[in-house]
Amino acid sequence: MREIELIDEIRKRAGSPGEDVIAGIGDDCAVLKYDGKRYLLWATDMLVEGTHFYLRQAGYKRVGRKAVAVNISDVAAMGGVPGYITVTIGVPPGTKKAAIRGIYDGIFGICKEYDIKVVGGDTNRSDTLVIDVSVIGFVEKKRLITRSGAKKGELVLITGPVRNGRKEHLDFSPRLEEARFLSGRYKVSSMIDVSDGIAPDIGRVCRESGVGCRLYEGAIPLSKALTLHDALYYGESFELLFTMGVKEARKLFLEVKSRKQEPRYFVIGEIVPKKDGLTLIGKEGRISALRMEGFRHL
Amino acid sequence: MREIELIDEIRKRAGSPGEDVIAGIGDDCAVLKYDGKRYLLWATDMLVEGTHFYLRQAGYKRVGRKAVAVNISDVAAMGGVPGYITVTIGVPPGTKKAAIRGIYDGIFGICKEYDIKVVGGDTNRSDTLVIDVSVIGFVEKKRLITRSGAKKGELVLITGPVRNGRKEHLDFSPRLEEARFLSGRYKVSSMIDVSDGIAPDIGRVCRESGVGCRLYEGAIPLSKALTLHDALYYGESFELLFTMGVKEARKLFLEVKSRKQEPRYFVIGEIVPKKDGLTLIGKEGRISALRMEGFRHL
Repeated sequence: MREIELIDEIRKRAGSPGEDVIAGIGDDCAVLKYDGKRYLLWATDMLVEGTHFYLRQAGYKRVGRKAVAVNISDVAAMGGVPGYITVTIGVPPGTKKAAIRGIYDGIFGICKEYDIKVVGGDTNRSDTLVIDVSVIGFVEKKRLITRSGAKKGELVLITGPVRNGRKEHLDFSPRLEEARFLSGRYKVSSMIDVSDGIAPDIGRVCRESGVGCRLYEGAIPLSKALTLHDALYYGESFELLFTMGVKEARKLFLEVKSRKQEPRYFVIGEIVPKKDGLTLIGKEGRISALRMEGFRHL
Repeated sequence: MREIELIDEIRKRAGSPGEDVIAGIGDDCAVLKYDGKRYLLWATDMLVEGTHFYLRQAGYKRVGRKAVAVNISDVAAMGGVPGYITVTIGVPPGTKKAAIRGIYDGIFGICKEYDIKVVGGDTNRSDTLVIDVSVIGFVEKKRLITRSGAKKGELVLITGPVRNGRKEHLDFSPRLEEARFLSGRYKVSSMIDVSDGIAPDIGRVCRESGVGCRLYEGAIPLSKALTLHDALYYGESFELLFTMGVKEARKLFLEVKSRKQEPRYFVIGEIVPKKDGLTLIGKEGRISALRMEGFRHL
C-alpha cells in the first residue's frame, strides 16, 4: 500500500478535527490552540530496529539520540521550539541494564543540548527494539509554518549542503537554529524536513499546497560523497526544505552574505502551477518526473 | 532490570521538569500548564504483538481499539477527558491494506465513542506489529487527581467488579464515566488505572504518596472466573484504584445507593503509615506482603 493513499484515507476517515486544531494529519506536527501568543506543536516518531537503524552498527546511545532528533526536526519544520518529550521503549527480553542506560544516555544528551525535558514514558517488552518519542513544542502564532502555503512563482530552498542520510542519519543535528532564524525574520510560506528524500518531501508540500514544482539538478548542494539519487530518494538528511517569495529570498541572501558565514541556504527550484507537475531539470537540460516514493514505502 | 528501579533512575536523570510541569515521570499522564481553568494531560502507550496481544486471536480491529483504550484509561486516571490522539504504527513488510484498515476501524470506532479526534501519525515498517498512541486530554484544575495524594487513614477503593484482564483486555471500556463522576463530585486524593495488577499499581500510589496500605482479600470484588491472584498480579483490568477520606466515601456510597445502580465502587482496604508496608489480610486473617511486580516486568 502506498503511504500517500494511506494518509489520504486516514485523513478522510478522521474528518474535521474541530476549530481548536490549526493543522492535523499531513503536516510535520499537529498544531493545537495554546495561549494568546503561541500554538502547541505535537509530533510522535517511532524508530524500529532493522528499519531505521541496525543496533550492532549504531549502538544504543546513538539510537536514543536519533529518536529524539527526528522529533526536534519535526518541531523545527513548523518554525517552533521543542519543550517536552515522552519516551516509550520496547526492548527484547533479557536486554541488559547497561543497554537501556545507553539509550537514555543518548536521549538525555540531546535533551540537554536542546533544553528539552523528559516528562513521561514507559518501557515494554518487544521482540524488536522500538523507541517511540512524542514531543510537545511551541511556536509563536506569527512564526507557524505549515506544508500548505507554497504559491506559484515562489522559490524552493533547502538548508545544506545536503547531508548524507546513509552516513549521518544517526548523528545529525536537527536544523533548529536555521528554522528559528527563518521563522523569526522571514516570510516562509511552507516548510518540511527531509526524512524520505527531497523528491517525496517536496511532493508532500506540493500536495498540501495544491501546486507543482520544478527542481534544478545542478542547484542541489550535495555534501561530499552524496549522490543525487540519494539526495532525492534516500532521505534521512533532515535538512529543511522551504518556499518563499523571490524578494524575500533576496533579503535572506543579503543578510547571510553580510554575516560572512558559510552558505547554509540554497535555491534549488521554483513552485509552478499544479498542472505542470513535479519535474527535475537535469544538468544538460533533460526533464524528468520526480517520483513520490522514497525508500520508506511500506 | 526491575521497572521501578528503571523509572527511579530515569526520573533522577531527568531532573526537575520546571514550573510549567505539574506532574511528570511517575504518573499516568504528564500534566502541563494549559489555560486559566485547565491543565493539559499527555500520555503515550505502546502495544506490541506478542507482549500485549496475539494477532491471530485478537484480530486487527480489536488491537486498534485497545491501543486507544489504554490511553483513554490513562487520562481518566487523572480525572480528565481525552481530546486528541496521534497514531504511529509499525507493520511487517507485506501487511495487507485490509489489515491496516482493520486497525484503523478499531481506532476510529473507539474515537467516535469517546469523541476523540485523530490529528496525526505515521506508518513504518517493523518486523513486529507495534501500535503507539499518544493522547492529549484536559482536566479542570480542581479535578486533577495524581498518584501522590494518598494519606494515612484514608480508604482504598476500586471500580468493579474487577474485570478479568486475561479475557477482557482487548475489549474493555475505559472507566471514563466513573472517573469524571468521581473527579467532579468527590475529593479523591489519588488515582491510578490497574494495568499491571492491583498490588503493583497500589504500590505505585503508595510510593508516590509516601505511605503504605493494607488490603482485605475478602473485600476485593472479583468478576466471574477471575482469580484473586490475577486480580492482584495479572492486571489488564483497567479498573480505577483510588483513595479518599472515610467521610467522603460515606457520601459517595449514599449517593450511589440513592441512584439504585448496580454497585460500581468498592472499599478494598486502607492507607497506613509507610513503615507498615503493603500487606494483604487473607479471608482467614493470614497476613502476607503484597509484591510489587506484575506480569509486565522486563
